[in-house]
Amino acid sequence: MDYQKILDELHDAIKAIEHKGKVASYIPELADVHPDKLGVHLTTVDGENYGCGDSEEKFSIQSIAKVLSLVMAYELEGETLWRRVDVEPPGTPFNSLVQLEHDLGKPRNPMINAGALVICDILMSRLEKPKKEILAFIRKIAGDDTITYDETVAKSEMQTGYRNLALLNLMKAFKNIDNGVWEVFELYCNLCSIEMNCAQLSKTFLLFAADGTDPKTGERFLTGSKTKRINSIMQLCGFYDEAGEFSFKVGLPGKSGVGGGIVAVLPAQYSIAVWSPPLNAKGNSYKGMEFLERFTTETEHSIF
Amino acid sequence: MDYQKILDELHDAIKAIEHKGKVASYIPELADVHPDKLGVHLTTVDGENYGCGDSEEKFSIQSIAKVLSLVMAYELEGETLWRRVDVEPPGTPFNSLVQLEHDLGKPRNPMINAGALVICDILMSRLEKPKKEILAFIRKIAGDDTITYDETVAKSEMQTGYRNLALLNLMKAFKNIDNGVWEVFELYCNLCSIEMNCAQLSKTFLLFAADGTDPKTGERFLTGSKTKRINSIMQLCGFYDEAGEFSFKVGLPGKSGVGGGIVAVLPAQYSIAVWSPPLNAKGNSYKGMEFLERFTTETEHSIF
Amino acid sequence: MDYQKILDELHDAIKAIEHKGKVASYIPELADVHPDKLGVHLTTVDGENYGCGDSEEKFSIQSIAKVLSLVMAYELEGETLWRRVDVEPPGTPFNSLVQLEHDLGKPRNPMINAGALVICDILMSRLEKPKKEILAFIRKIAGDDTITYDETVAKSEMQTGYRNLALLNLMKAFKNIDNGVWEVFELYCNLCSIEMNCAQLSKTFLLFAADGTDPKTGERFLTGSKTKRINSIMQLCGFYDEAGEFSFKVGLPGKSGVGGGIVAVLPAQYSIAVWSPPLNAKGNSYKGMEFLERFTTETEHSIF
Amino acid sequence: MDYQKILDELHDAIKAIEHKGKVASYIPELADVHPDKLGVHLTTVDGENYGCGDSEEKFSIQSIAKVLSLVMAYELEGETLWRRVDVEPPGTPFNSLVQLEHDLGKPRNPMINAGALVICDILMSRLEKPKKEILAFIRKIAGDDTITYDETVAKSEMQTGYRNLALLNLMKAFKNIDNGVWEVFELYCNLCSIEMNCAQLSKTFLLFAADGTDPKTGERFLTGSKTKRINSIMQLCGFYDEAGEFSFKVGLPGKSGVGGGIVAVLPAQYSIAVWSPPLNAKGNSYKGMEFLERFTTETEHSIF
Repeated sequence: MDYQKILDELHDAIKAIEHKGKVASYIPELADVHPDKLGVHLTTVDGENYGCGDSEEKFSIQSIAKVLSLVMAYELEGETLWRRVDVEPPGTPFNSLVQLEHDLGKPRNPMINAGALVICDILMSRLEKPKKEILAFIRKIAGDDTITYDETVAKSEMQTGYRNLALLNLMKAFKNIDNGVWEVFELYCNLCSIEMNCAQLSKTFLLFAADGTDPKTGERFLTGSKTKRINSIMQLCGFYDEAGEFSFKVGLPGKSGVGGGIVAVLPAQYSIAVWSPPLNAKGNSYKGMEFLERFTTETEHSIF
Repeated sequence: MDYQKILDELHDAIKAIEHKGKVASYIPELADVHPDKLGVHLTTVDGENYGCGDSEEKFSIQSIAKVLSLVMAYELEGETLWRRVDVEPPGTPFNSLVQLEHDLGKPRNPMINAGALVICDILMSRLEKPKKEILAFIRKIAGDDTITYDETVAKSEMQTGYRNLALLNLMKAFKNIDNGVWEVFELYCNLCSIEMNCAQLSKTFLLFAADGTDPKTGERFLTGSKTKRINSIMQLCGFYDEAGEFSFKVGLPGKSGVGGGIVAVLPAQYSIAVWSPPLNAKGNSYKGMEFLERFTTETEHSIF
Repeated sequence: MDYQKILDELHDAIKAIEHKGKVASYIPELADVHPDKLGVHLTTVDGENYGCGDSEEKFSIQSIAKVLSLVMAYELEGETLWRRVDVEPPGTPFNSLVQLEHDLGKPRNPMINAGALVICDILMSRLEKPKKEILAFIRKIAGDDTITYDETVAKSEMQTGYRNLALLNLMKAFKNIDNGVWEVFELYCNLCSIEMNCAQLSKTFLLFAADGTDPKTGERFLTGSKTKRINSIMQLCGFYDEAGEFSFKVGLPGKSGVGGGIVAVLPAQYSIAVWSPPLNAKGNSYKGMEFLERFTTETEHSIF
Repeated sequence: MDYQKILDELHDAIKAIEHKGKVASYIPELADVHPDKLGVHLTTVDGENYGCGDSEEKFSIQSIAKVLSLVMAYELEGETLWRRVDVEPPGTPFNSLVQLEHDLGKPRNPMINAGALVICDILMSRLEKPKKEILAFIRKIAGDDTITYDETVAKSEMQTGYRNLALLNLMKAFKNIDNGVWEVFELYCNLCSIEMNCAQLSKTFLLFAADGTDPKTGERFLTGSKTKRINSIMQLCGFYDEAGEFSFKVGLPGKSGVGGGIVAVLPAQYSIAVWSPPLNAKGNSYKGMEFLERFTTETEHSIF
């Protein structure tokens, strides 16, 4: 299949359609990104690469990083991890406290804010220098040492993240946070501040298409079984309250972030990253969703 | 792969483990089924069949029938169907009115009771003799004219289904039911009363593994795209409040019923039906879940 | 205190202010009432009567009738009544199913629709000819044999009351309705259809200011203790989700109806009925609330 | 009426009944109080005093202090106060985040934790030395300079108050907290730590029976209208999720605290404070509720 041609054509078509979303505005670093940006990059397990548009320009991957911290915590903690966070789709908007209170402080899954905060708490308990070691791990699976936290973004997140502090304190009241609330919050804000471009993001997520390995080197980051399970979590929980819609229309496991990035994988084939900053009402990239829907329609790819 | 051997071994292993669930008891016809029953049947797209245990004994397929009425309504109505029912996982117990009231009478998906009732309402509007035509359609995709409604079960459902009547009346208040509440209720109770054995159930669901066709005759029941979309709905919504757990552990799209049946499919390969009446706390067959988890672990099958 | 003068002045002042609400429109009989209507009548325990405006024109008392059916059921059933309905303020909009589901079919209080439906169910079980005997009881406490059901209103209520049928079926599922759902619904719709004018309404509620008696004849309808308790229920639950607002601003126990009527009592002194059809966003008469707030400010009356 | 005799008899009767509640145990200072303690004190607007049992022993007044901070904030802020906190009964357990999230950060009333935290925030903005000035104000209305914060209790509250921090952060996210979350939290914990005995508590709340004044000196602390309004708030919101029950059975405005204290007032007559540490399931003093119910039954006192 001529991926480059399909991507190029879709890029031009999607570029031309009208914006129907809004760029995230709760911190200046996200608000200031130009809404016209559009990049895409596809990496196959055979080592082929196809990119176009603004695929080399960095953006804040935001919630997409939750999948990477989950990989690290799952490897360290094993199946006991699920005593502290569930694997069910949320069913309510992504940072709702209602569900959390109903479930006595156990988040519905590790992709919602509450769940990702619990994962950060676990990493803090397991690692000696969490912030440093998490970045090192992400650089390793990305195969790229230039990936960094964006300290300015992290600071902005910390100044506006009262709702995450509410989640943390509520879970602390339910005894599902072991470390200090502020320390976990800081680690989480740093995690969300990681910057990548589409090429890096696509490469980083290739492990989910390659049974948990780097297909080039053969290095294993995660067992095959755990990889499938994280794919399942992405499929059911990766798009806030729109996971059903994405699964229904795109048919691939994936994860989005409020920076406008979306990454998806077709097991045994490829990973693909798209970036377009304006978000729809559910908080997912409007053009990113559109791009991937047309891409899987065109290619007739789907896990189903 | 020697499916017969794997099924036989798993059957014996699962048969031996202790019951950890309870047979549904809200109507006598379900309460009276022997808890030790255990059947399984696998049908491949190549026409092979593997069964063991009580795979030839009929049981009430209950909610599994919701997938079949959805197929029929989706073909008749097309994408406008989704104006009246969403495709998102429920996030709360399966027959909750809370979600429905929050979403102004639009059910979260067609697999929860509310959504299946809307599908019945649509079929009532579209068909001249709904009860008769639905059965004819199911017989056609099953390739089996002996499949019938169980009138006794249907009557029992009608005598105890106050919660479904509450759902119907609430949706009627929100103007999401066009026909008479009682007529829709009656059709729904009949639908849930359909009886099949594992062999029939497995054969009936083969279309979801075969891109919407009967692989033997090549007859198409549903377009490929719509088939993928229903598979996605099963994946995200097929197991009440345990869809995440099933997807995480089993990794296949599927649907369960309170009669103790579960059916799942591996696209392009096979469909598999298991039956064991005792249900876990979430309303899914305890041993059925266990069987399928071990089966996909053994075979390393998964859509992910 | 010169009640007539105060009422006259307030009537003119309130008549002059702009409408800020909407006449109930879910049934034609309510929708067709002229929004300019404004009546008020005050009856003292000493037998004095003060009225002005449209105080002699009949209107549908709607939910106000819930207090009268409660009086009858409380006398018949005694304190065991509270096993089936609670005495707590609702905390959510007046006909919400959420609360009911959370509380396993036990309504929060007898002033919300669900609670009033349970009261009707109790009266159906206790009385031989419920519809006839309830009207006879209301005529007795009103001291007026001309009071009747409005059959046209009752029929309209029955044609649009799907939400009440949802409540009834849900409570039936929780086994908190003993009689047939339809029969209870019919009785409830009749109860809500009762017509009175302000003078009749004020006289009917005088018993709540007179320790449960008719102060003229001395006839006792309810014990003093039970009277106080129903006053407490009106104070905390009489105005849907605006009970706090009414209590805060008016300071008297009372009850409103979507027909635009409000009745309130000052224990040991008087009862007062106001009628103005346009309702505020919470479903209470906009000018009725305004009238009573100014009246108690002027007179410095309050139970607090 | 011979109040002393009634109190003495009730004290002995209530002392003799079995404990049916549990002493609050979330901080050691409350957990260590002897469950057998029972005190009561009644103060009339005519200056009479009646006490018995452990009425001179100090206890932590806890949430009862919320009424006093409200008085101070209401005087300073006037009616604009209600833009930030509502006057409606909660309808869900007392520290629930659900309601708060539903109402976009505006607490249902100033008696629930969220509402009292907003009141503290308002006092922090209005006062130069909030902690000092609040205590001075309470000492003034109590007419007693020995009343103090219990620093040990305040510290314990601060170490366990994660749920309150969650509430504060959530309201901060909704922009309904102006000051620093931690500073408001600290002030609130101090407020809840105030110690009084029944005699002091009864005297302090006499203003609510005396139209906002100290009946002895005639000094006015609050306008008559505002006093009535706070009485209304106590009536509808003073007992967590049991306000209806208390109003129904006792019939007086009042407020309880988890230290086991309850104070209630009969306007124009008296205030009465009871103390018994074991709490019922709703968080109110079991014997305190019982005492006041029997007291108002005996005296036939009620605002209704």
